[in-house]
Amino acid sequence: MCEATAYLLKNGQEELILKDVDVIEPDGDSVRIVNIFGEQKVLKAEIHSLNLINHKVILVEK
Amino acid sequence: MCEATAYLLKNGQEELILKDVDVIEPDGDSVRIVNIFGEQKVLKAEIHSLNLINHKVILVEK
Repeated sequence: MCEATAYLLKNGQEELILKDVDVIEPDGDSVRIVNIFGEQKVLKAEIHSLNLINHKVILVEK
Repeated sequence: MCEATAYLLKNGQEELILKDVDVIEPDGDSVRIVNIFGEQKVLKAEIHSLNLINHKVILVEK
């Protein structure tokens, strides 16, 4: 499966936010992430980078 | 494989930009996308949404 794990970059550390992420939607100062189980998180953050082969979404606080 | 296809949303149409995308990195007013073959594109755009299960990256002009 191709879902990813989302991390929040905070003081140089990657903090796990949500596993099995399917949808990622930036919205103004926030990013909404939804996983394959319908679990949703909205963070005051922006996308730092995505690496799909490594299944990794890195967000950074805004 | 888990790479995605990147589209640019333009006048309500999705324009194909790059297939087999691995890395996506917003950088100010631009987004850099790199595919598994090392092909790279930098667009004056922002991320509209990602759907990893559907392997779809939607960018929108900035």
